Amino acid sequence: MSETGVLESQPALVGGIDLGGTKIEAIVTDEGHHVLGSARHPTPTEGGPADVANAMAAALTEAAKGASVEPAQLRGVGVGSPGVVDSRAGTVSQADNLPGWIASFPLAAALQSALGTRIALGNDVSVATAAEFELGAGRPYRSLLGVFWGTGVGGGLVLDGTPWHGRGGAGEIGHTVIRVGGRRCPCGRRGCLEAYAGRAAMEARARRLRDRGVKTILFELAAEHGRDRLTSGIWERALEHGDRVATRLIDRAVDALGVGIASAVNLLDVEAVVIGGGLGVRFGEPYRARIVAAMLPHLFNDSRPPAVLLAALGDLGGAYGATLLVG
Amino acid sequence: MSETGVLESQPALVGGIDLGGTKIEAIVTDEGHHVLGSARHPTPTEGGPADVANAMAAALTEAAKGASVEPAQLRGVGVGSPGVVDSRAGTVSQADNLPGWIASFPLAAALQSALGTRIALGNDVSVATAAEFELGAGRPYRSLLGVFWGTGVGGGLVLDGTPWHGRGGAGEIGHTVIRVGGRRCPCGRRGCLEAYAGRAAMEARARRLRDRGVKTILFELAAEHGRDRLTSGIWERALEHGDRVATRLIDRAVDALGVGIASAVNLLDVEAVVIGGGLGVRFGEPYRARIVAAMLPHLFNDSRPPAVLLAALGDLGGAYGATLLVG
Repeated sequence: MSETGVLESQPALVGGIDLGGTKIEAIVTDEGHHVLGSARHPTPTEGGPADVANAMAAALTEAAKGASVEPAQLRGVGVGSPGVVDSRAGTVSQADNLPGWIASFPLAAALQSALGTRIALGNDVSVATAAEFELGAGRPYRSLLGVFWGTGVGGGLVLDGTPWHGRGGAGEIGHTVIRVGGRRCPCGRRGCLEAYAGRAAMEARARRLRDRGVKTILFELAAEHGRDRLTSGIWERALEHGDRVATRLIDRAVDALGVGIASAVNLLDVEAVVIGGGLGVRFGEPYRARIVAAMLPHLFNDSRPPAVLLAALGDLGGAYGATLLVG
Repeated sequence: MSETGVLESQPALVGGIDLGGTKIEAIVTDEGHHVLGSARHPTPTEGGPADVANAMAAALTEAAKGASVEPAQLRGVGVGSPGVVDSRAGTVSQADNLPGWIASFPLAAALQSALGTRIALGNDVSVATAAEFELGAGRPYRSLLGVFWGTGVGGGLVLDGTPWHGRGGAGEIGHTVIRVGGRRCPCGRRGCLEAYAGRAAMEARARRLRDRGVKTILFELAAEHGRDRLTSGIWERALEHGDRVATRLIDRAVDALGVGIASAVNLLDVEAVVIGGGLGVRFGEPYRARIVAAMLPHLFNDSRPPAVLLAALGDLGGAYGATLLVG
């Protein structure tokens, strides 16, 4: 076969889908990791895994249209998914932030059938960490902790240049216990970092405070902007308005992140921490600096803190990382 | 050179010294890791690093005598040390649990001069973890968290068969924050695991309770047994007597260990956790089981807990690990 023949049989374009608790990001990239097409759809809040898979296929099809290709012409599509991902079996289970997704669902097969190309599954935060390591803020470093501050608080690890997955479930920095017997976490336990810093936990807390009669404009802002959830943008606006509930909850989230990250750094002594996720990307530099300030008092080796950086790939890190899954 | 000549020029026996906050363990082993001689001396509580180095040399000399060799005839002596160890420079600094040992001290040079053989330095918990991984309870596993429950709470990591040191300071599981704003830790911070579980912290707490008039036999027992510190044996006897202060402090230590280990497992998803250290070895199986019971409620992947094992090398793990430093 001629070299040209080889190139023709190996399409250069790949797709990536980042499945988040709030939105689905889909991109199509070329070999230089340039985005040729993209789409963002809201994650269904009702139905079940099949409905989520349909929304994912629709988003990827729209991104492919932007790149002037059919999905079936892509070399493959990578998917970063929350929950317990079995990349060999192509299944996802226990995706607590997604509707009705507890039992194992054959996501790879569903997407392959809808898109006509092969599908590679990975854990959402692992792929976002790999993207920051290979293409983003983590490029100068060999060891990296990725902290994704969004609906939940996810973590990813790269140690000595290699992703660390443990037995498949590593990276759950959101379930570092920062206060024994503390606030209830969406995972059902108490005192986890995510119980203080996850957007879902903060929304539940804000709702309880409002129901008790504490004044907050969070839910009015959400209604004004046609949101049925408190998105990162709603939290940002509430802070700009000086809303006291939003300010207090975000202050506690920042403190909790600093403590949880410090404990992880004390254990692993990584060179760098990269902060991403919906809230991390939205809040940007001032909050990166505040998280560092909250971390430093708890660092054991406090004369030599790690570099703490914002995710350089922003909202698209997860989708970029998903494209890296396609071999 | 004949094969016999090679063997003669490469002595088979090596020494190992484990420098603890309470005692110095020295052993001499053959190529099959059999102990041919051993000695245990108390760690000096006054003076400075040079006095500690003298006590270490005396212990190793006694162990060598038991093996019927001179220290200078050993292929080398490995040392597991607390504090910040620079193995290339042969120095130790910031050994907070040792008398007057804050500034950098050339421990390798001092021991080389006293013993007449080459010295290899390592971090005490790292070498004890390596010993359990290579010779002890961790042998069936590729990834391991060692937790050393003694004067402080130290941690060591082996990931995918290789010790993980980060930038040189990894493994500080004792300074995982388990309660933001909680009890004061010997490190000067608040709420660390070691503030609840370290023997030094527990002794300070027991002393404050006694000074406030709370009844405890801990200090009488120590005086009866000629101890100026609450050793692991004193804690054990106080528990056997049903001392309420000892019972309460050890109960909290067990809970704290369970929480801190769970957070580390949530982050790293290691296959196994090995529990050693003076208290861990002394208390043995019933407390291993209690630590597991305290860990399980905080595990994120609770359907698949890691194996939790007692250190198989017991008190000698650190000294065994030190011998492994000699190439």
